[in-house]
Amino acid sequence: MATAQKLPTLLNGVAVDGLCATIEAVKTTPSIAKFKFRVSNRWETGSRNRSTVASFSGANQELTHAKPFRLEADEPAVLLGNDLAANPVEHLLHALASCLTTSMVYHAAARGIRIDEIESSFEGDIDLHGFLNLDPRIRKGYQGIRVLFKIRADVPDDRLQEIAQLGSGFSPVFDSLTNGVPVSIAAERL
Amino acid sequence: MATAQKLPTLLNGVAVDGLCATIEAVKTTPSIAKFKFRVSNRWETGSRNRSTVASFSGANQELTHAKPFRLEADEPAVLLGNDLAANPVEHLLHALASCLTTSMVYHAAARGIRIDEIESSFEGDIDLHGFLNLDPRIRKGYQGIRVLFKIRADVPDDRLQEIAQLGSGFSPVFDSLTNGVPVSIAAERL
Repeated sequence: MATAQKLPTLLNGVAVDGLCATIEAVKTTPSIAKFKFRVSNRWETGSRNRSTVASFSGANQELTHAKPFRLEADEPAVLLGNDLAANPVEHLLHALASCLTTSMVYHAAARGIRIDEIESSFEGDIDLHGFLNLDPRIRKGYQGIRVLFKIRADVPDDRLQEIAQLGSGFSPVFDSLTNGVPVSIAAERL
Repeated sequence: MATAQKLPTLLNGVAVDGLCATIEAVKTTPSIAKFKFRVSNRWETGSRNRSTVASFSGANQELTHAKPFRLEADEPAVLLGNDLAANPVEHLLHALASCLTTSMVYHAAARGIRIDEIESSFEGDIDLHGFLNLDPRIRKGYQGIRVLFKIRADVPDDRLQEIAQLGSGFSPVFDSLTNGVPVSIAAERL
């Protein structure tokens, strides 16, 4: 990566000097790179439940968000809910969309590439034979997800494709979702 | 699964008759089980971007939500954002939390099991050496996610564990995240 001296301090809305300082700090003190992210969730009724995002740890500290964020979930009527919020598999697409976009923007900034605008669309296929347990050959989750990025940047075509690949090259959600993550679940009585 | 006749019409806030009717309808007309979920995303600046969830298809129809849902993303200050919203990897935990909970609630209802309360907590580990490209041996995504469910239900202990397993047994997000999903990305000029 280029050094802070060669780059403007703010590019794509990213504090490039801060990004370079973070990289240098991680090289000096590797433990500050270890983060733990958390949510807590409470079921309301039926398909309605709500998560709270309040704290996380990283940079060798316990940290709190400026305010707790409340994230809701419901299902549309056709899936027996009241359609008061996006459903879980739509939230998963948002996680992917937001992570690919931020990863692209940060890594372009670190390379001194200015991006003017990004729009993207995401579509994934689910066959309810899986969730409803009607056919063991059909998976419960997404069978595939298609993404289209539209990027405005004053760069040649090959450079545009390179920018797009910064998203999938570095996104934590893309890596988690495409390569899989071990999830351990325990349950106890409330 | 039990038939609608033996069960109350509403259990755990789930219209069990509707759930059984859905299962019968899918058996008769398999194509109604095919759903496509979508989000569109727009970058604002830096780590801020926003998804809109407006339409989906399923049950052989193009469907729209009661209203479009806006989902935001940002990063905390330590990750160079303004901390105006949950970050992408926190949204991923919400997707997992909401899907495990709803899957548990629906499948318990289909089995005639009443659940009184569910709370859960989720924590995942990310080492920024991955995202920052400082160590190719360290993955960019979650290294692991730990989940604790607390369930209140008037059932013996072994039945409580069985309820908890309905979540991971049927959740589309759990399946997607633990087993991985193929994601194809295209990019064009805006």
